[in-house]
Amino acid sequence: MGKITSSISSYEGKPIRCKAAICRKAGEALVIEEIYVDPPQAYEVRIKILCTSLCHTDLSFLKLDDGPHVRFPRILGHEAVGVVESIGEHVDAFKEGDVVLPVFHPHCEECRDCKSSKSNWCTRFAEDFLSNTRRYGMTSRFKDSSGENIHHFLFVSSFSEYTVVDIAHLVKISQEIPVDKATLLSCGVSTGIGAAWKVADLEEGSTIAVFGLGAVGLAVAEGARVRGAAKIIGVDINPDKFELGRKFGITDFVNPSLCGEKKISEVVKEMTEGGVDYSFVCVGLNSSISEAFISTRTGIGKTVVLGIDKYLAPASLDSFDIFRGKSVCGGLFGGLKPKLDIPILVDHYLKKELNLDSFITHELKFEEINEAFDLLEQGKSLRCILWMDK
Amino acid sequence: MGKITSSISSYEGKPIRCKAAICRKAGEALVIEEIYVDPPQAYEVRIKILCTSLCHTDLSFLKLDDGPHVRFPRILGHEAVGVVESIGEHVDAFKEGDVVLPVFHPHCEECRDCKSSKSNWCTRFAEDFLSNTRRYGMTSRFKDSSGENIHHFLFVSSFSEYTVVDIAHLVKISQEIPVDKATLLSCGVSTGIGAAWKVADLEEGSTIAVFGLGAVGLAVAEGARVRGAAKIIGVDINPDKFELGRKFGITDFVNPSLCGEKKISEVVKEMTEGGVDYSFVCVGLNSSISEAFISTRTGIGKTVVLGIDKYLAPASLDSFDIFRGKSVCGGLFGGLKPKLDIPILVDHYLKKELNLDSFITHELKFEEINEAFDLLEQGKSLRCILWMDK
Ligand SMILES: [Zn+2]
Ligand SMILES: [Zn+2]
Ligand SMILES: [Zn+2]
Ligand SMILES: [Zn+2]
Repeated sequence: MGKITSSISSYEGKPIRCKAAICRKAGEALVIEEIYVDPPQAYEVRIKILCTSLCHTDLSFLKLDDGPHVRFPRILGHEAVGVVESIGEHVDAFKEGDVVLPVFHPHCEECRDCKSSKSNWCTRFAEDFLSNTRRYGMTSRFKDSSGENIHHFLFVSSFSEYTVVDIAHLVKISQEIPVDKATLLSCGVSTGIGAAWKVADLEEGSTIAVFGLGAVGLAVAEGARVRGAAKIIGVDINPDKFELGRKFGITDFVNPSLCGEKKISEVVKEMTEGGVDYSFVCVGLNSSISEAFISTRTGIGKTVVLGIDKYLAPASLDSFDIFRGKSVCGGLFGGLKPKLDIPILVDHYLKKELNLDSFITHELKFEEINEAFDLLEQGKSLRCILWMDK
Repeated sequence: MGKITSSISSYEGKPIRCKAAICRKAGEALVIEEIYVDPPQAYEVRIKILCTSLCHTDLSFLKLDDGPHVRFPRILGHEAVGVVESIGEHVDAFKEGDVVLPVFHPHCEECRDCKSSKSNWCTRFAEDFLSNTRRYGMTSRFKDSSGENIHHFLFVSSFSEYTVVDIAHLVKISQEIPVDKATLLSCGVSTGIGAAWKVADLEEGSTIAVFGLGAVGLAVAEGARVRGAAKIIGVDINPDKFELGRKFGITDFVNPSLCGEKKISEVVKEMTEGGVDYSFVCVGLNSSISEAFISTRTGIGKTVVLGIDKYLAPASLDSFDIFRGKSVCGGLFGGLKPKLDIPILVDHYLKKELNLDSFITHELKFEEINEAFDLLEQGKSLRCILWMDK
């Protein structure tokens, strides 16, 4: 279907026919198909996606062929920016034409934890990430041409020209920020910056180690750079990441393949007279949490876990180090409360304080989505923007 | 020797002969002997102990017969209140006659971490807890009657009529608080209250579980009670602890011996609709960190480790739970900066907000110190105050 921006609301209350990239079988190329997107129900908004990008979680779920999270057919995608096409009942904060950013992590704004300043966990909604719709369980808003329901993904499903998103997963953003830069704030980049700013709350002059220099790890570095960290050590087996990392403030590089007999933590400790103030685990390797923990300073060190082993192996930590003051914590969505904190990140970008541009290494048309997956899997792209209308 | 309060400084610059309880062999009764206490060197203060109390750490070190921490002869004791008898060079903050509280945990006030608001770790001093004197290594200020050096303990050694303490380990306190109540603030009770107030920073209406109801655990409960916690679950195998615990705000009790097939964490989760906001490990059991961690709420739960297995077994934690937001941290001296925070606790006591009185279950003369150790070991006392001059 063509552009409908000129009369965006003419479909209000009716299904919209449009294109989407469907995941029909684990590990296979996505298939661009025509689908029907139902109108939004109460507390939901139907949005026209302007652009979307790919995150490693999309790749992991594309390949997933075992366990309760496997579902086909499904529309993946959870980093995007869109425009509100129509709204359901009880939607006060959004109106047709608003530029919006969907976020996989909910923010109901009403539950006890959403109201607390201590965490970004939403007790009301965050426990469930398997349903299709936030308030209607497995009910789907997507149907394929044969009328079969298509599953949602992380309450976003942005690999579609239109999608329906619950208001708990939607942030209104300024129209001033270019939509491709804003798209980055939907997931990985916000997670990294938030981990540095909110979870670690790192101070000028502090030292950090980042395990894994994908988009999340580099965003941690960028957040640390802006805060004035004195030493930002990047740990990655890919030597190309160091040059790339310099753009985001990485000052020192450790390549585990070149450490010889030494453990990564030993090398990091030698570089920092006893350990870093903060370490960030941005890679899904079993040993990383432990090495990151050991790499931090006695009595002070904080380890923030942003990546996880797919086998969910337990983390084994020195209890005496914990007793003496080291800590370990998570940082889902970088500890950010989406509706409160995304606009703040947008603001930092508009003030030219944050480097978001360097995260975009590729741009393709939506139809070229499988090529974008190849680039990501081969480690060639950091973020590839897919434009829906180009 | 008799009272010397009338002419406290007549010994200035000279050794003082007085009585001390010497630990000469692991596990054996302490021996009251006459010793010589040298004058304070630069940055040190010689104090006359008014009263002292016993903590489980004293008991552990009394029994310790293996490893680098074993030293004889030694003067144990680290909870006390005293009066300044004389001061060394470069001591500006204390003068003869000041009422002071020694603390095992240093606070130099000058290093980077002492100046940071994020932790109470003193980078300059905290790493070392084995030396006799803070700035002079293994040099001792104690000699026995044969002229042999006697080792210090945790930079306090309060089981002596006189002791020498570095200014980094000394807090000046108000003369308004009864000295026996103040003595409690030297270690365990401050650790528990600080863990609730500073480390967890717990809010009104929150739920907590306390593993181990010794003085530290009960002090956590007391801190939580004052903060208005909605549910304070005490976990202990001793059923007598529940009645005692009520005085400090314990609302619910779990006896692990009565849990049957169920794990403690399952019982705690059932009592709290999914887990507590904060759990506190106040016991040195290998499994407690893990059970305390599991007992906390998904996405939110914080586990504070105040007790440790003597074998220092590693803590095994669910990495997915960490990833989603649970955290674990230490709480050495309750996260308190002694010179800043002890006077605040004193203030809360004087305003009748804090119940310290109930921690004192026994009072004895200093000479009866071995009896006090028996009471502690048999679980009969919470805190036994030993009076030096009675
Ligand atoms: Zn909420
Ligand atoms: Zn993502
Ligand atoms: Zn210090
Ligand atoms: Zn103690």
